[in-house]
Amino acid sequence: MPAARTLAETLAAKQREISVAEFFERNRQILGFDNPLRALLTTVKEAVDNALDACEEAEVLPEIHVEISKEGADRLRVAVDDNGPGILKREIPNVFGRLLYGSRFHANRQSRGQQGIGISAAVLYAGLTTARPVLVMSKVAEEEAAHVVELLLDTQRNLPKVVREDLQLWDRPSGTRVELLLKAKYQRGRQSPFEYLRGTAIVNPHARFVLTEPDGTRITYERASEEVPKVPTEVPPHPYGLELGELSSRLKASRRATLSEMLQTDLAGVSARAAREVLEGAGLKARDVPGDVHGEALERLLQALHTVALVPPSADCLSPIGPVLIKRGLRNVLGDVRPDFYAPPVSRPPRVRGGFPFLVEVGLVYGGGLPVDQPIQLLRFANRVPLLFQQGACAITNAVQTMDWRRYGLDQRGGSGLPVGPCLLLVHVASTKIPFTSEAKEAVAEDPELDKELTLALQSAARHLRTHLSRRTRRDQAEEKFAIILKILPKLAEKTSHLVGKPIPDLTPVITKIMDVVNVETTIATEGARTVRAEVTNYTPRARVLEAFVEMPAEVFGAATFAPAPDGTDPALGRAWWTLEKLAPNGRERLEVAFPKGTEVDASDLTWYLAGVDEAHLLGAETLPGDWDIRLPRAVIEAAQEAGEPLPSPEEPEVDYDAAEASEHVEEDD
Amino acid sequence: MPAARTLAETLAAKQREISVAEFFERNRQILGFDNPLRALLTTVKEAVDNALDACEEAEVLPEIHVEISKEGADRLRVAVDDNGPGILKREIPNVFGRLLYGSRFHANRQSRGQQGIGISAAVLYAGLTTARPVLVMSKVAEEEAAHVVELLLDTQRNLPKVVREDLQLWDRPSGTRVELLLKAKYQRGRQSPFEYLRGTAIVNPHARFVLTEPDGTRITYERASEEVPKVPTEVPPHPYGLELGELSSRLKASRRATLSEMLQTDLAGVSARAAREVLEGAGLKARDVPGDVHGEALERLLQALHTVALVPPSADCLSPIGPVLIKRGLRNVLGDVRPDFYAPPVSRPPRVRGGFPFLVEVGLVYGGGLPVDQPIQLLRFANRVPLLFQQGACAITNAVQTMDWRRYGLDQRGGSGLPVGPCLLLVHVASTKIPFTSEAKEAVAEDPELDKELTLALQSAARHLRTHLSRRTRRDQAEEKFAIILKILPKLAEKTSHLVGKPIPDLTPVITKIMDVVNVETTIATEGARTVRAEVTNYTPRARVLEAFVEMPAEVFGAATFAPAPDGTDPALGRAWWTLEKLAPNGRERLEVAFPKGTEVDASDLTWYLAGVDEAHLLGAETLPGDWDIRLPRAVIEAAQEAGEPLPSPEEPEVDYDAAEASEHVEEDD
Repeated sequence: MPAARTLAETLAAKQREISVAEFFERNRQILGFDNPLRALLTTVKEAVDNALDACEEAEVLPEIHVEISKEGADRLRVAVDDNGPGILKREIPNVFGRLLYGSRFHANRQSRGQQGIGISAAVLYAGLTTARPVLVMSKVAEEEAAHVVELLLDTQRNLPKVVREDLQLWDRPSGTRVELLLKAKYQRGRQSPFEYLRGTAIVNPHARFVLTEPDGTRITYERASEEVPKVPTEVPPHPYGLELGELSSRLKASRRATLSEMLQTDLAGVSARAAREVLEGAGLKARDVPGDVHGEALERLLQALHTVALVPPSADCLSPIGPVLIKRGLRNVLGDVRPDFYAPPVSRPPRVRGGFPFLVEVGLVYGGGLPVDQPIQLLRFANRVPLLFQQGACAITNAVQTMDWRRYGLDQRGGSGLPVGPCLLLVHVASTKIPFTSEAKEAVAEDPELDKELTLALQSAARHLRTHLSRRTRRDQAEEKFAIILKILPKLAEKTSHLVGKPIPDLTPVITKIMDVVNVETTIATEGARTVRAEVTNYTPRARVLEAFVEMPAEVFGAATFAPAPDGTDPALGRAWWTLEKLAPNGRERLEVAFPKGTEVDASDLTWYLAGVDEAHLLGAETLPGDWDIRLPRAVIEAAQEAGEPLPSPEEPEVDYDAAEASEHVEEDD
Repeated sequence: MPAARTLAETLAAKQREISVAEFFERNRQILGFDNPLRALLTTVKEAVDNALDACEEAEVLPEIHVEISKEGADRLRVAVDDNGPGILKREIPNVFGRLLYGSRFHANRQSRGQQGIGISAAVLYAGLTTARPVLVMSKVAEEEAAHVVELLLDTQRNLPKVVREDLQLWDRPSGTRVELLLKAKYQRGRQSPFEYLRGTAIVNPHARFVLTEPDGTRITYERASEEVPKVPTEVPPHPYGLELGELSSRLKASRRATLSEMLQTDLAGVSARAAREVLEGAGLKARDVPGDVHGEALERLLQALHTVALVPPSADCLSPIGPVLIKRGLRNVLGDVRPDFYAPPVSRPPRVRGGFPFLVEVGLVYGGGLPVDQPIQLLRFANRVPLLFQQGACAITNAVQTMDWRRYGLDQRGGSGLPVGPCLLLVHVASTKIPFTSEAKEAVAEDPELDKELTLALQSAARHLRTHLSRRTRRDQAEEKFAIILKILPKLAEKTSHLVGKPIPDLTPVITKIMDVVNVETTIATEGARTVRAEVTNYTPRARVLEAFVEMPAEVFGAATFAPAPDGTDPALGRAWWTLEKLAPNGRERLEVAFPKGTEVDASDLTWYLAGVDEAHLLGAETLPGDWDIRLPRAVIEAAQEAGEPLPSPEEPEVDYDAAEASEHVEEDD
């Protein structure tokens, strides 16, 4: 055993400062660079996230190109460019060559990059695996040429090392291009740049992305909206959830002359009146100097801030996706799959954790071509960035898995874990500070406040699902019942009439009493011309205003004639519609679509929709599909593109502030 | 839209350096401080890990006290002290008040603390939530008194701020005590300090822990071994898996005069001959200056280092738990649960990833009182530290879940996920650099090399399980067959003998031919004295040396008499044994245990074990249990404690270098 005194000194001699870059060089898995596939994705992600943030700050519609090309056996060159505002030459080295340096860390508003690590980590990794510098080209508006800077990250000092500087002409007003050579691997599929850009396009429909894959394939993700999202505004931290240490540093750093002023200006939600109450509660004076508050006075001040009623946090610093774009996003990701049911998207009001506002949004679709016997698909997003790794470690996944979905009609073994069924869930967490589990920003950490909001939002969507499923069950039962009645009643009536020697009575009123449905019966007549006929009968006890729609392939629409004349048509979408004003109980309307002889059309090519009656009370036709309100007519899209004008926005549906929300209680599991 | 030029400048003005402490203050979830329960565990863990590392470096048996006491509604005081070598006064501020500062980051050997973050993070969190300084008391040997230092961590500068210094007498040769006040919550159960210390004791049987809970309950985890583990030695990095950037910095930092010298001294596994080959392959000269190698020469050098055959990495820098202590650890955690089967613990040979040696160990037990219808229990360890959080995000869990356990006899839905069954798995990863997923060190990141080793180790353990389960199945079948034969054969023999008028023949040889088992038949005779009789019959075709053991409650052992006289007894364990020399085929031995009238004993109180025949060929008795070799007689333990001597070590069983290992192929799933 060595002499202990000597040992303590030996150990002391080994104590050293560790550069943050050295730390991450050795722990690169923490940054998302532990294997060639993940390294590629992280690099693309950091560059694209920066590009999107920059374009949003400049309020321009982002146009982002990602080129990935092969260079040697296990190396890829990644180039990302944008049309953002550009970066001043003097800032380029620090932005790209220094970890923990950035503009968004101290800004209390929603953005993708919040840590000041991202792109510099990619530069670090590139240097580590290929010893090659990053090439940055950036042009700011009103400058003649772009600056080109090549640099490496010096890990021992965590500082940039510029190896080349130059000027270059660039035929765009402003923008930035980053080019890196790194050890990486390209592979399409889950967790690839392809998937990442698809997910990013879903929640950033105002951006256009062009991806060039190593084999030269070029994929374009077109813009689906021409509206630049509102730039979230910076707000001071809200006192709810603020800790002692944080309050203490805020007080010390304050430039306000008095405590009262500091409370109203440096914190959110504190009115003049609230400030008076807080100060009184804490036994402090309005004119006290902020920096002088410490010890017990500090604790009393925090106590009072947590007790006095304050203005709730504002959502101005957040940029939610919103119900319309959630629906459109889901439709984009689903492509040809047409789900039966879109739950009204849920957008929860903002809340605060640790002084940082956040909100949760949820979209849910069900049925159609989604796989029936697989776990549901879960799309996770944080601040409009898709999360592709670490699903198992994420609070979003956890919230989904700990909910008992059996209560809402999904199959789930033991009432926990991912439920099974034809369902796709989109969950978005927006915050001025997302609590990621690591610097790689791949999973959201557990947090009681966040968890509560996630659960409330999921329950709200799930309740809509439950309603839909129970309506569907009732409709199936009604259909069965209807079939039996239509078979037996006429026979019964015929026999009885024959027996008593009276004419066969009209059965409609009887059927109405028993069924309580609107029935659509379609028949086809093929005498010369081909006629498809739909008979709409109101077997419900009250008069109804109904809207009937028929949809067919646009190619045959021109050949169709309608009787009666429809109230409107959309040839581009192959759609015609009628309003059936006040169809009385037992009332019946006949709609006909005729095609000239030889038209290539079949009854199954025509789909009938009825609005004005819910799914449980409709037989023989469809209710309007969940995405009907966001399907823009093709002609409208084309016209807008030709004219170079922005697309018209579909109506914004009402935000779903659920009835159950007033009580704000997380439902108990049975 | 703001003018772009102005915008680029506005953005530039916001660019700032972020202090690493500020970063972690805001992202405290990354360090494991995101809620009061986890904050407590992380604090205890970091302090205890440091204490264990310090004691190991000093080669003393660790004696570690953890006291947790309540102070106010949501605050706890945590104090941890050790008998380690102490810390020099001048080092205390940096060690406790500065993130990314430490002695073990640059040392290439296995230790618990490797990041230089741990305990300073706890100080940061304590300051943040209670604004109180940490109190550190430390005494180094040969000094009269201990130094007391109270300090805070200044987050804006990431530097310690000392608020008090003092001297204090401390009645121990050397040691360190840390005391923190933090917002925290104590709760026994999963993910508690209680569980953490239990897990730590399992894989650190040479340490003694005393935990005082907030209600005053004191739990002692006694030492189970008096041997100080060998201190792992520092080794230079091995070229396998080394990246270009790392090699480049090693070359630049080298103090060697020539490249040849650098390769042999600054890297592991490069002999003089290998160095010559490498230089030749890279087209470089032995006398080249290390710092001058760059560009293409650097790439050729790395290429050559990865091609030329080198000495494999040494395990000297690692400190595996070893088969004996894995078994003993499992037995400790199981307590009263006595599994039927202990798989021989697997200790894989060391491998290298990214220049860092690592190895994997696996222990597996099955049956007994473990729950049959639950997922298997998985105990994860990294460098002798239990991992209690983030199971879902861990490469260890992933390796277990992606294996098809159905092939090895466990129930598993769809061939992936945690299998279900009465099984407990212990997995330990030891490395000079564990790739944790975050600074909280709660989960191991995915890595292809690591994953391969994990899978090989798990498969090796699983194969033993499969053998055990198929033997058990064969044995169950044999038992059934035996019962039928013993019922039918004598009747058949009797009838036939009667028919042909001959005496009934001895059936033993026939049974031997059919059965191929050793049978133990126990009967009880209760005439006055109570006698338990075991008849051992060798129904196998070859002579066998068998050892028979009988075990009974120690209380009744004194009253028992044995016939024939046993070859040995252990009254403390209630155990007697006989060697049955050369029991010929068809041979039979009778063993008897008699108790005087009135003894409180039953046949079911006696367990018979037989060694010398495997499970598949033994009926009516048990094979030796898996933990037999590590169960020390109670008398031996007591004697050692009385004499103050270390416990004798049980024999080290052979390390399981599995037969399948030679081929080193990960098995394909069916």
